[in-house]
Amino acid sequence: MDAFSKAVGRALYADDLRLPGMLYGKILRSPHPHARILSLDTRQAESLPGVRAVVTGRGLPVPYGILPVSQDETALAMEKVRYVGEPVAAVAADTEETAGRALQLIRAEYDPLPPVLSLEEAIRGKGEPVHAKGNLHKAVSLKFGDANPPEEPEYTREDAFFYEGNTHLPLEEHSALALWKKGRLVLYSSTQTPFHLRKILAKVFGLPEDAVRVIAPKVGGGFGGKLDPFAHDLCASKLARDAGRPVKITLTREEVFYCHRGRHPAWMNIRTSWKKTGELLEMRFRSCLDGGAYGSFGVVCTYYQGGLQPTTYRIPSYTVESARYFTNKPPCGPKRGHGTPQPRFALEAHLDKVAEELGLGPVELRLKNLAPPDSTTVNRLRVTSSGLRECVEKAAEASGFRDKFRKLPYGRGIGFALGSYLCGAAVPIYWNEDPHSRVRIRLDAKGGITVFSGATDIGQGSDTVVVWAVAEILGVPPEKIRLVAADTDRTPFDLGTYSSRVTYMAGNAAREAAENLLEKVYRRTGGRRMPFEKAARIAVEKEGALESWGSYKPPLKPANFKGSGVGPSPAYSFCACAAQVQCDPRTGRVRVERITFAHDIGRAIHRPSVEGQIEGAVHMALGEAFLEEQTFHPSGLHRGPGILDYKFLSSLEMPEVKLILIESKDPGGPFGAKEVGQGPLLPVIPAVANAIYDALGIRMDKTPFTPENILLALERKSCGRIPRVGPEGFPDIPFPEPTHIPASLPGETVPC
Amino acid sequence: MDAFSKAVGRALYADDLRLPGMLYGKILRSPHPHARILSLDTRQAESLPGVRAVVTGRGLPVPYGILPVSQDETALAMEKVRYVGEPVAAVAADTEETAGRALQLIRAEYDPLPPVLSLEEAIRGKGEPVHAKGNLHKAVSLKFGDANPPEEPEYTREDAFFYEGNTHLPLEEHSALALWKKGRLVLYSSTQTPFHLRKILAKVFGLPEDAVRVIAPKVGGGFGGKLDPFAHDLCASKLARDAGRPVKITLTREEVFYCHRGRHPAWMNIRTSWKKTGELLEMRFRSCLDGGAYGSFGVVCTYYQGGLQPTTYRIPSYTVESARYFTNKPPCGPKRGHGTPQPRFALEAHLDKVAEELGLGPVELRLKNLAPPDSTTVNRLRVTSSGLRECVEKAAEASGFRDKFRKLPYGRGIGFALGSYLCGAAVPIYWNEDPHSRVRIRLDAKGGITVFSGATDIGQGSDTVVVWAVAEILGVPPEKIRLVAADTDRTPFDLGTYSSRVTYMAGNAAREAAENLLEKVYRRTGGRRMPFEKAARIAVEKEGALESWGSYKPPLKPANFKGSGVGPSPAYSFCACAAQVQCDPRTGRVRVERITFAHDIGRAIHRPSVEGQIEGAVHMALGEAFLEEQTFHPSGLHRGPGILDYKFLSSLEMPEVKLILIESKDPGGPFGAKEVGQGPLLPVIPAVANAIYDALGIRMDKTPFTPENILLALERKSCGRIPRVGPEGFPDIPFPEPTHIPASLPGETVPC
Repeated sequence: MDAFSKAVGRALYADDLRLPGMLYGKILRSPHPHARILSLDTRQAESLPGVRAVVTGRGLPVPYGILPVSQDETALAMEKVRYVGEPVAAVAADTEETAGRALQLIRAEYDPLPPVLSLEEAIRGKGEPVHAKGNLHKAVSLKFGDANPPEEPEYTREDAFFYEGNTHLPLEEHSALALWKKGRLVLYSSTQTPFHLRKILAKVFGLPEDAVRVIAPKVGGGFGGKLDPFAHDLCASKLARDAGRPVKITLTREEVFYCHRGRHPAWMNIRTSWKKTGELLEMRFRSCLDGGAYGSFGVVCTYYQGGLQPTTYRIPSYTVESARYFTNKPPCGPKRGHGTPQPRFALEAHLDKVAEELGLGPVELRLKNLAPPDSTTVNRLRVTSSGLRECVEKAAEASGFRDKFRKLPYGRGIGFALGSYLCGAAVPIYWNEDPHSRVRIRLDAKGGITVFSGATDIGQGSDTVVVWAVAEILGVPPEKIRLVAADTDRTPFDLGTYSSRVTYMAGNAAREAAENLLEKVYRRTGGRRMPFEKAARIAVEKEGALESWGSYKPPLKPANFKGSGVGPSPAYSFCACAAQVQCDPRTGRVRVERITFAHDIGRAIHRPSVEGQIEGAVHMALGEAFLEEQTFHPSGLHRGPGILDYKFLSSLEMPEVKLILIESKDPGGPFGAKEVGQGPLLPVIPAVANAIYDALGIRMDKTPFTPENILLALERKSCGRIPRVGPEGFPDIPFPEPTHIPASLPGETVPC
Repeated sequence: MDAFSKAVGRALYADDLRLPGMLYGKILRSPHPHARILSLDTRQAESLPGVRAVVTGRGLPVPYGILPVSQDETALAMEKVRYVGEPVAAVAADTEETAGRALQLIRAEYDPLPPVLSLEEAIRGKGEPVHAKGNLHKAVSLKFGDANPPEEPEYTREDAFFYEGNTHLPLEEHSALALWKKGRLVLYSSTQTPFHLRKILAKVFGLPEDAVRVIAPKVGGGFGGKLDPFAHDLCASKLARDAGRPVKITLTREEVFYCHRGRHPAWMNIRTSWKKTGELLEMRFRSCLDGGAYGSFGVVCTYYQGGLQPTTYRIPSYTVESARYFTNKPPCGPKRGHGTPQPRFALEAHLDKVAEELGLGPVELRLKNLAPPDSTTVNRLRVTSSGLRECVEKAAEASGFRDKFRKLPYGRGIGFALGSYLCGAAVPIYWNEDPHSRVRIRLDAKGGITVFSGATDIGQGSDTVVVWAVAEILGVPPEKIRLVAADTDRTPFDLGTYSSRVTYMAGNAAREAAENLLEKVYRRTGGRRMPFEKAARIAVEKEGALESWGSYKPPLKPANFKGSGVGPSPAYSFCACAAQVQCDPRTGRVRVERITFAHDIGRAIHRPSVEGQIEGAVHMALGEAFLEEQTFHPSGLHRGPGILDYKFLSSLEMPEVKLILIESKDPGGPFGAKEVGQGPLLPVIPAVANAIYDALGIRMDKTPFTPENILLALERKSCGRIPRVGPEGFPDIPFPEPTHIPASLPGETVPC
């Protein structure tokens, strides 16, 4: 849909927008990771010619947060700053230069406090905690299924892993342009969730939601990083109101690194018990997340840490213990995979070790324990369609895994791993009974078809999916269909772009709206057979236009589903990945030769978009595996807040990706489709780790797999020590006694 | 609705818009009033760095015109230029300066032809005619009612008048910003008729109408001057397509004078026959219009010249002869009053002379011959509501006319005149069966009410009328209602802003849409009594939004109308004006002391807007009466194409206006409302002329009433010559034999 306009530079992003009389806003940020604000004097800044408005924390005192349970942020710090880069004040001026000079004129006095900069420090808890209630944000302890393993274990293994934090690195820096029209706030923002942002703006400004309009222009990449409401959204809005003029704030690249909300650093521990023949009997998964200074989506991440292991593997008895701590660093939040890539890395690397010790092939061990389709998992998730077995077999076959594993020369290796992700959450962030997506279609007198969807295309191609779904039902070429998207005034409600929900939910709403339109047109033309365009002209004769609606709400029980239970998602995607690598033991450098990827997409609505998503996920996953580190100096400063310093995969380093699409035709998905935006990232990292072991005999139990760490592991190997880089054990966290949730409740029949 | 945003400078006009990568367009215009184009060499311009596209006539060869019968223009002159300022070529460049330099590099060779610069020259027809078919554009000869007067006339009088051409002078210069999106053209233009402009763009670019989107941003005054499609609309579109980038063309003030499409200079002759007691027996009205170089709306003007006299006065036998000639000057077109202010000036000044000679008061003579309400005029117009008698009586009373007429001291005087105008045309410009206006209302899940209307607010306040009509029906405050207007993609069809049609037609459609919405909401809430906002929330629960539609199409027979016939409008406004002046016989300067104005508005939907329209019309009328002249040097150059040279009334010269609103409650108007945008201009000019006669004893039979002309008439008076300035007789025009249309057709009953 948008390929051409983006390719030629015509697409409009938030920072491309300019309005007459528009001011430029800038944000003053804390230089301290942890400090009390003693005083803030803005008088000199206010009197600088060209400065039109200045705001401090007192001007925006209402706390908020994306989750109802984590309303722990204010747009500007009130009494304390909790990370370097935390917004403290904001100014709007005639030019960017004047705004920048005004920031320098704001006198801020701080009383620095000892910062909490690591998980260890957060758990130890010396000095003043990050938040008054302590450094522990959330601890979850759950036991699913049988209280004890169904048979006596013959083999048990325990491993520890660490997944480094990293950030989204969208090409577009965040930008927000606010204006007020007769007491109504209009905000253009590079956001993934215009309707949630509307809710937060309404809360902070004390307005009814109807008095706020949020428009997402083209968004240049989100990956979860544009999901939270941000200080720049609120400051632009406040400054625009105070100055009586439009105000735009566009972040610098450095500021984007401090906004963050990216991947949580995770310290993990996994213990499994088995029969010698390779049947999994029980699993205990422990995770400790470094959350940064605020809640963001962290509570969800804490649950997701243990959530999706059982969609790929049958686990009779499953214990999950997960905690999130506050630290004096930029807040972590949702990044592609949202709390599942870290445990997936731990699980799949752990399985590689188990397989080796049991003398089984990694593919065989996985096949033996695969979760079946149309079943309820031990943690009561409803799996409907699943092409997982086909994914495993096709990926193994196409990569030649069985012929290559443990047979390639020293320095070359192949690894295997699985993944799974949800197709949106079954409940919205703010619980209510409304549909999660609505789509409206208007047929105009001149034959135009316009689709209105609140879904937000952040580059992932949801605009294309919505239009293609309508085109398919109406039988018209997609080029004939216009789309209006992501504008809370113009488009019907949609939860937004997160949880891989858009294709499944907005796609279903689009399909239903198109079916309803077809039905209306058919009724008005007396059911005569004729081309749609002709029928449409007849149908709109009377009113000059015709409208139809469609909506989607996850069903309590999906169509054709034989099992029971309540799941967090109406469906799950599945995938298998084989990674082949070539390692240079002298330099520690790893070249990925080829990724073979089989993904159960349900049904590919627009094949090039699906392929693009998988290739994009592989690209991002390899960046996380080998290069990316969102890490900080002891001063609290980011170690490399710029594209030159923060290393990520360049296109020249991208390996060949061999794609296999499995179409399991999900009974609840639009045309059978499922997600592809996040799931494909998951198996790549452990597949690469397993391949490095196959190549060099060293275990990379910690990301990123840098040359330094590979050389360190090789050195340990050559000294006869454990050939591995990774954490030891697991910190002593005061987890509560796990709540036990049995696999089946009284009266339920669980088929698996 | 828009007062605040306009007052503080936040409203966005077309020239306020900027897009990334946008180019600036400029138009090369002819320096000759009449010439053949020998060659156009754009090579040097094209090679100037920064120039991105150049277009000449060959690039936009499809002829067009606002009326289907006058498709006589091309965006750029093809073989001949026909007026100074006619567009010849256009360029788009990175900056305005570069575009300007590029224009200078275009080598155009012309073969000048003798120009036709006056009506006399056009009629005489020496040399090459303006168009191949000759200089006569259109001639109309019609005879209405009785073939002969019903009684033998006892008194007959004939007078000649001249009404000078003048132009609209909107505060906003025309501007157009074009971009192409996937083969679709999007044009932001300061237009009064987005849907007509869409039609023309589709024609010229060979696109389906659905592939063109026209948006009218805020328009800074139109008065008819932004009704035609313009070269800058088409050139911006073409240049944007060729350059692959957005292109904006904003006219300079000088260019606006050459675009023109304003008031036709009219040479008129009127002859009436009477009984001595003051009963009008017959009238012959002749008019000859100086049309400029192209058709524009001229054919309509030709008909309008004789059209509206019978809505104010009973005329048993009525002959109209009207012609329009082409001249080598900027094309004339529709300006506020659209072909009726000139004949109204002639008629009302003529009646003042008749009354004096018959020894009757001017008010009494008029009252004696007033056309009644609920009647069919001699030219078969259906008059429904008419508060004309009340207007006459109230204006006479409030101005103290009877006490002052012929009784004020020398130099001071009072004059009286009537006016009438239509409330939109009964048939669209392009004949079809569709409604003339549609309005859509959307009720959102969050309680928002959005009204979608294609009507275009050009400063006259139609946005306010549409919103107020909806607010009235729904019973919610207007501030709670949002409006989306004048966007061919987003809003339903509306013919546009002309013929004073918007309040009557879009207002009716808005009323019906609101009634339909109320009905839907009522049905979904089971008819329980509750506040609208609560009922609305219940009503949208299921679909998340609710839509309703309303439309308006002039009825063949208006409600409660007892007469018959087919009229050009569903209703007529009426007004009466008394002007009191103070003249200085030494300088010829006239100061208008007070205007007393009674207007039959039907029903005032928004009183401040109605008052603003009347005051604005008085302001413009006094400008036309005393100052404005769109006239040309023998070279074809405008005599004063700038705001300093083209004299118009300043706010300091504005007299006190005493307003009386008569509410005759038209049976077909929304809430009884009728038009006020154009009608009030009509009686002001003759009332002033009659007042000057009352003050000084001189007849100003030619506009404008400049000090020079007043001194000239005074000089003639002092020399014993006829104390008058105006034309003699009427040119010898080959009018065809008048077609006779009797007042009643067989089987019809005509009450008046």
